[in-house]
Order: sequence, then C-alpha cells, then structure tokens
Amino acid sequence: MSPPAALDVNLVGVTDTSTVPVPDPLAVNGVSAWRQKTAKVPTGVAAACNSDMFKSPACYTKPKAKRFEHRFSVESKARKASTLKTAAGYLKNPGLISLGGGLPSSEYFPFEHLDIKVPTAPGFSPEETQKTGTVLRAGKHDIQEGKSVYDLEIALNYGQATGAAPLLRFVTEHTEIIHAPPYSDWQCTLTAGSTYAWDTALRLLCERGDYILMEEYTFASAAETAFPLGLKVAGIPMDEQGLLPEAMDDILSNWDVKARGARKPHVLYTIPTGQNPTGATQTADRRRAVYKVAQKHDIIIVEDEPYYFLQMQPYVGEDAKPVPPPATHEEFIKSLVPSFLSMDVDGRVVRLESFSKVISPGSRVGWIVASEQVIERFIRNFEVSSQNPSGIAQVALFKLLDEHWGHSGYLDWLINLRMSYTTRRDSLVHACEKHLPREIAHWEAPAAGMFHWIKVDWRKHPGISAGKTHGQIEEDIFLTAVDAGVLLSRGSWFKPDHDTVEENMFFRATFAAASSEKIDEAISRFAASLRSQFGL
Amino acid sequence: MSPPAALDVNLVGVTDTSTVPVPDPLAVNGVSAWRQKTAKVPTGVAAACNSDMFKSPACYTKPKAKRFEHRFSVESKARKASTLKTAAGYLKNPGLISLGGGLPSSEYFPFEHLDIKVPTAPGFSPEETQKTGTVLRAGKHDIQEGKSVYDLEIALNYGQATGAAPLLRFVTEHTEIIHAPPYSDWQCTLTAGSTYAWDTALRLLCERGDYILMEEYTFASAAETAFPLGLKVAGIPMDEQGLLPEAMDDILSNWDVKARGARKPHVLYTIPTGQNPTGATQTADRRRAVYKVAQKHDIIIVEDEPYYFLQMQPYVGEDAKPVPPPATHEEFIKSLVPSFLSMDVDGRVVRLESFSKVISPGSRVGWIVASEQVIERFIRNFEVSSQNPSGIAQVALFKLLDEHWGHSGYLDWLINLRMSYTTRRDSLVHACEKHLPREIAHWEAPAAGMFHWIKVDWRKHPGISAGKTHGQIEEDIFLTAVDAGVLLSRGSWFKPDHDTVEENMFFRATFAAASSEKIDEAISRFAASLRSQFGL
Repeated sequence: MSPPAALDVNLVGVTDTSTVPVPDPLAVNGVSAWRQKTAKVPTGVAAACNSDMFKSPACYTKPKAKRFEHRFSVESKARKASTLKTAAGYLKNPGLISLGGGLPSSEYFPFEHLDIKVPTAPGFSPEETQKTGTVLRAGKHDIQEGKSVYDLEIALNYGQATGAAPLLRFVTEHTEIIHAPPYSDWQCTLTAGSTYAWDTALRLLCERGDYILMEEYTFASAAETAFPLGLKVAGIPMDEQGLLPEAMDDILSNWDVKARGARKPHVLYTIPTGQNPTGATQTADRRRAVYKVAQKHDIIIVEDEPYYFLQMQPYVGEDAKPVPPPATHEEFIKSLVPSFLSMDVDGRVVRLESFSKVISPGSRVGWIVASEQVIERFIRNFEVSSQNPSGIAQVALFKLLDEHWGHSGYLDWLINLRMSYTTRRDSLVHACEKHLPREIAHWEAPAAGMFHWIKVDWRKHPGISAGKTHGQIEEDIFLTAVDAGVLLSRGSWFKPDHDTVEENMFFRATFAAASSEKIDEAISRFAASLRSQFGL
Repeated sequence: MSPPAALDVNLVGVTDTSTVPVPDPLAVNGVSAWRQKTAKVPTGVAAACNSDMFKSPACYTKPKAKRFEHRFSVESKARKASTLKTAAGYLKNPGLISLGGGLPSSEYFPFEHLDIKVPTAPGFSPEETQKTGTVLRAGKHDIQEGKSVYDLEIALNYGQATGAAPLLRFVTEHTEIIHAPPYSDWQCTLTAGSTYAWDTALRLLCERGDYILMEEYTFASAAETAFPLGLKVAGIPMDEQGLLPEAMDDILSNWDVKARGARKPHVLYTIPTGQNPTGATQTADRRRAVYKVAQKHDIIIVEDEPYYFLQMQPYVGEDAKPVPPPATHEEFIKSLVPSFLSMDVDGRVVRLESFSKVISPGSRVGWIVASEQVIERFIRNFEVSSQNPSGIAQVALFKLLDEHWGHSGYLDWLINLRMSYTTRRDSLVHACEKHLPREIAHWEAPAAGMFHWIKVDWRKHPGISAGKTHGQIEEDIFLTAVDAGVLLSRGSWFKPDHDTVEENMFFRATFAAASSEKIDEAISRFAASLRSQFGL
C-alpha cells in the first residue's frame, strides 16, 4: 500500500533509488527529522486533519485492516457526514468571502493569553516545578505571529471532532512510537474523555438486548455505561493474569442463543494492564491467546488502557534492593507489555487512551486508536454530540506535551511516574505483608495500575454457620472496616455479570492517593477488622 | 414549599417576624449579600453540589414542577446511581482513611498554575485587553491557601457531573437573575457543550421511531443529531416570528398514528431567539401561545438558546440615529424577550445554555436548566459518559466570570456584545438594501442572533420554464455565487422534515465573522449572481 497522496509529495526526497527499502518505524529521536518531511500541520479555524498526515512511511508497508461494517449498529450505520461541513469544501476557493458558517469572530473571545507553569525535565516534583518550572504561553494570535502552530484564536473557536491537528499529531506519533500497529490504515481521534469514548463505542457496536464480554470483575462504571443501553454482560473468568482465553472461547463456542435470549456477543471490553479492580496485567502470551480467540469468533476488542504507563518495576519485597529505573527510552518502551493494538493484524482493536492517570483526569481529553473505518464512525458521532474535547484543555496539553516536553520529555515524565507508583505499590504490599492475617487474606503484588486486590476466605467466616450469605458477610467486613476508619471497595461492586453467583470474595485497595504512612495505618485497621470478623 | 434543610440554617437571620414576607428575587446587586447567608460552596475533590445550595429564598415560595417520568425513555428509566459514588457517602466519617476510590494524587498533575489575561470592564476590545487587561491566576493549592474556592488541585482531578460547585453557583445565580423560573425545584447542571446536551436530551426523552417537533427550518446539526437515533422530524410552519403555535396545535391535534407510523410527538426542539437559520425571534406573546399548545398536548419544550444574549438594538435603517445602549443592567434585562423558562409554570422546559456565542465555543462548557427530576436523569447519564466538562475550561470560566467580572461585569460584557452585533447586523442589512434586487429578494432585519435569511422568488427564475426543480435552481444560484466569490448557505440544508416539499427558497448569510467591508463586497457579489441567474 502506498502512502496517501498528501505524503507522496514529501517523500520524493526520501528515497532516490527505484528499489524502495522498508523504512524504519518512527522512534522518539526520529520525530523532528520526520516532521521536516511532512506537510505542514493545518492551522486554520476548525481545520480538517487526520493521522495520515503524521504517520511515517513505515506504516504504509503494512496491509490494510479488515472491514467491520457487519459489526456496526443500526444507529451507527445511519450516520452521515454533516451537511454544513460539506460546504466547508468551498472555502479553499481563493478570494472567496464566506457568509456561510456561524463561527463567532475571535475578537469576542475574552482571553488574550493563557499561561501554564509546568515541570521542566527532570525536575518533575511539585517542589521542583515551583523552583525550576517553565511558563508556557498560548497567545491569541501566535499562529499569525509565527510563534506556534496552535493558539487561542483556534483553540477557543469551534473545532473538528478529531481534535486540533497539532495535538492529533502528537498522539499519532506517540501511538506509532509505542505501539506501531501492524496494519496500515489506523487512525487516531481525540475524545472528550475515555468514559465518553466507551459510551460511544457501545452505541456504535451494539443493539439493545446484546451481551458484551467483560472480565468477571471489571470497572463498575464501564458496566454501568452499558446496562441502561439494554446490554447484558457475560463475565469471563480470570486468574492473576486477567481474563482466561479458554474460558472466553468456551463461552463463545457454547453460546446458546435461545437460553440467553440474545445473539452471540461480538464485543470484548478488557482492561489488559493493571486491571480495575483486580490489578491483573495480561502477559504478552496471554494477550496473543485472547487475540486468537477474538479472531476465531470475530470479536471487536475494546482495549481500555488508562493504566498502561502505570506499569511498575518488578516487586522485590521489602528488604531487597530496588530495581533501577529503565536507563534509556528504548529500554523503557521495551519493558512495557505489548498492547493488543501492537498485535492487531486485523484492525479489530479499539484502543481507548486516556490522560487521566498520567496527566490529569480533569482535562477530559483522551484519544482512541482504531482502523480508519471504525474511527470514521466515531467521528460522525462526535460531530453531533461532544463535537470535540475542550480547546482550552487541548491547547494546555499541546503546550506541555508537544512544544515543551516533546516525546522525549513525555517519556521521562512517564518513567518518573513509573518509579513513583512503584514506591506507592510497594508501600501497600509491604503493609499487607506486615499486617494482614495470612490465614484468610491472599494477594499478588500488582505489576501495574492503582489497585491491589485482596482475596478473603469468606467460607472461614463464623457467619457461615449462622447461615449468612456471601453478600451479608462481605457487608459485615466492609462496615466493620469503615467503623475502624478505613474504606476499601467491595469486590461485588465490580461484578458485571448478573447471571452467575460469586464464588470468591475480594476487597480492592488503591495506593494512588494516600501517603505511605496513611496506607500503613489503613491496612493495619483493615487487618484488625478482619481479625475481629473472623475471630482470629 | 420550604427551602431545603441546608439553607434553613442560613435563613434564620433573614426574617425575624412570624409572618414571613415573600422574599425579593435575586438581583445582580443582591448576589454578594445573599452569598454571605448561604452555606459555603463545597471545595473538596469531586464535591457533590446542586443548585439548591445557591438559589435564593424567593425560589421556594413557588410551587413544585409537575412530574414527567411518563416522558422518559426506556434507556433513561434504567439509569441508576453509580455504585462507586455511593461509597463516597462514607468519606464524611472523621478520621477515615480511604483506599476506596482510584483518584490520582494531585502531585502528579503537571500544572503548577494557570494564568489567563482577560478584559477588565469596560475595556472589552482586544486592543484594550492588551493594555488594561487583568491576569487571573489559578494556583494548584489556592483553596488550602485561602485564596479561592476553586483551584487546579480540584479542577484537574475527577469531578461531578453537575460541574464544579463554584461555577455551578455562578450559572445558578445567573439563571435566577435573568429567568426567575416560576416553579421552585429547578436545577442547573453544567454540560460538555450544548450539542452533547441535545444528544443526551434525545436519548433521555425519545425512542427509535418517534417523531420530534422542530421549526420547519432549523439548525442542520440538531436534526442530524436526531436522525441516526431513528427519529423523524415533523416541521412546524413558521413566519417572521418563528414557529406558528396554531400550526403546531394543528399537527398535534390531527396526528395520525397509523399514517405516520409513530406515536404523537412529545418533544419540541425550538431556537426561540435569533433562530438558526431564519434569524426569527419569537415575541413574548408568541412564546406564551406556544407554551399553551405544549401544555395542551403535554409536550416537553427543549429551548436551545445560544443566541439569547445576541438580542440586538432595534433596526433603524442606515440614516437613522442609532438607539443608545441600555443605561442600566435592569434596563438591559428588561429589554430581553422572556424565555420559555421564565414562563414555565409546569417544569416542562429543558433550557440548553451555551457559552459558545458569548464567551468561546472552544470551552465546550454549557449548562442546562430544568426541573430537578429531569436534571437528575441528565446527571445519571453524564456520570457514565462525558463525566463533566473539562476542569481546565471550568476553572478558566470561573476565574473570568465569577472572581473577576462577577454578574455585573458579565452583564457589561453582554451589553458590549449586543452593541457589536447590532453594528454587524446593520452592516449586512445595509448591504442588502444597497445591492440586492428587490424584485426577487426579500428579508427582515433580524432582532437577534448571527443570521440573516434571504427569501428568493425562485418561481421567477428562467429555469422554471426549462423544467428545473427547486433543488436545481437553488444549486444554480448557490454555485453561481460561489463562482462569483461568495459563500452563503442553502436554505434546503436546514429543512429537517423529509415528508414535506419546500414551497419557498432561502439563503442564509451570517454577519458573525466577516468585517463590514467584506460583508458589503460579499453581498454585492451575491446580488450580481442573482441578477445574472434571474436575467435582471
């Protein structure tokens, strides 16, 4: 497959022999050289853009994605391009005066500039940022004045559903550097947050009455997004590496349309890394096995990956020497478990990306990666719903990620985050080792994410002999802990499949927010509650 | 009805006699005194809040809204409160350490402060802002440091679907000052933009196969939001004051379920002020008549009002003396046509509010006003979709609107905008008077909005005798104008009802974006195109 026409022009100088060598994939240190060769990033008001403007030639050596229109919903199939946006095609005519679109004039945007003070690598802590941080300014007319490719005049006006070109460029390059999808026509689009992207994905892929596949324990809100749409969940059994491909195959191979009252599911929602709530991370082999099952049953995999960069250093126990941080960006990238996107030869993965856990949840900016055909359907939906993420958030992220840190500085930030979360995780696991009664409490140190999943042998609870149910015992333990001054989440809150009963009992603890002293105190309180509940 | 318990406490000092007088409605100059009496605005991470915290006692002298659950969709009725958010109730326990929620720690938000330079009243122009503008700072820990009630620590973290309390307070007060809804239990919630709010409203109120009511010409995107949801549009005939209540009554009274293949519509979408595309503004009497029809047929009115504050000075012609601006805020508020919300004794209005036309479309922050019952359903949807508008945009708006301008400064800004749009409108109407061939072109000067609607006597077009259709003639005129260097929008783009044929032909011109010189040149080009097309 050839690069699109827009890139052809720019590639003329790249190869001067008739035998075209396979180009190198984009790497962190190759971005600035590659940008010199690409067309200029579009800078007009609501300028159209797409990832093809920014992908490197390596992408185009790969085959195209499969077609998935047979998976689209009635709603999604009915979406058409916006009538008014088609008129924008005429705006290219030189000298044309447009009285067509109702865009307000930027003179009425009451923001002259926006400054953000941000960390300068490697001084990432709040204290260092105060001292050595850099102030970045987005002015109203930076583009006109040649100072930037994105400014307030553009950010404060209407935009495209893809997001603004300069930020789309950054996330496209980032996607290629980290995941290098193995098919050619992948695309990114920014989203108004990952939760919104998931809601849209469900409306795009499912009909009322459908089942979707989820891990047997999953992010409660993700299931609660699905239920009101008339969807049910088939929960896939898990082990410490997350969902079990054999179990998934089993559910799908033995799907009984009549008994379930629904067609066979065709969407898998999974959190492969640092799963919420279990903390499980699927290994590369596990992912390959799951992908094969998805191919066998023609499943779309929605890969929700907010915790991908919260992969931590190996857990080594309290007294062992900590593992030193990755020495280079290459080593860091290699240390990351490969994503479903990186093995997606068919284009059946919809990857939900989020800045919430690595920059700020309040930005309400995320992005998705999927095949061009699928992304186009998302965009048609966004155009008449969210329109695009906030331009104020987009310009702040662009200034920080692209103009200030660049890909290299962003990876430094992510490595720093990895080390911080490693310390946090270690505090929690150490506290568990120190305090929890091992007779009834079991856990694995999580390799990624924010969550620690504690299994409790509920069948040893004295309430059993009194005829108490799983739910009652879980509640007793939960409320005793609350009375003792510690809040953990009940495992049952995260069970989306209402057709099955719960065999085990879990509690979820997060190490994301509290200090290590507070974590120690909290786990000590939880341990005391467990002892009193189980009469230990 | 009594004020809610939270307010009771604060009202103790307000009345010291046993006969409680009817309190005065909230006015611009009464806000700061009232704020002294209310509970403190909540400032925690994702702190819960609602408009009742901020409404004045005058609201509670009014009856409650009617119930509208019979209008809710299957999807909306199925929505439940978030499992995880219910756990937040325990956070009030003193001394509790929470390892429950997965909120990232603010030390990992790489923004130390955010500054915006904004206009200082009355220096609203970009030039004046550069010279006399004020720099407003949102720091990371302003709340802890006693500097503000909203800061980056809060804005950059997860939030509530209502939006952050300090900004919700501002829009609640603004709503009371401008509209004083005539029932007690109205609520506001922020939205991730009005387009998203409309998409949500449709999913909340309609089922596939339903018809909704719209003006016979309406904002194309609003209709395109509805179509993929399986909705059809019954267009209501209009005159220069917008939709005709008799025609609406007629459609509803004679609704033929069998012929239409759908139940009688129960949702009216209307743009009452400066309607897009027609520029029509419904008078107070017209609105009252429409409201009566809505009551008769139990219709929910979705009032989309982005142009409410683009109501302009009366049009007086090129040589007449311009009408001086409103002298006071009271005079300004009185000059505004009353909203449907202001006459909504039943609580059947869902008012979609937007900052897009008065502050910035790129903020992607709007709000809605409706009865508590309806707002609660919106919130349940937002929680598992948009979550909340971007915190970065919210904090910028809060700093500008609440901390800097206050209600008084915001009204000054809106008056300034009114005068600017009056000048722009006048330029366009003058250009039409100067250039357009009155034999075939007709228009009314719009009283509000961004749009001018030009009717063309298409039956006088020579193409008629050659058997050309309405669509062909419209396209000929459009393309001739494009060739002449001017882009207007075709009226047919805005016709959402696909069951009826178009009797008339229109072109829409906006005066929002181009300068008066460009507008004059553009209309002169359009006039020449019309003359050549009609052989004049």
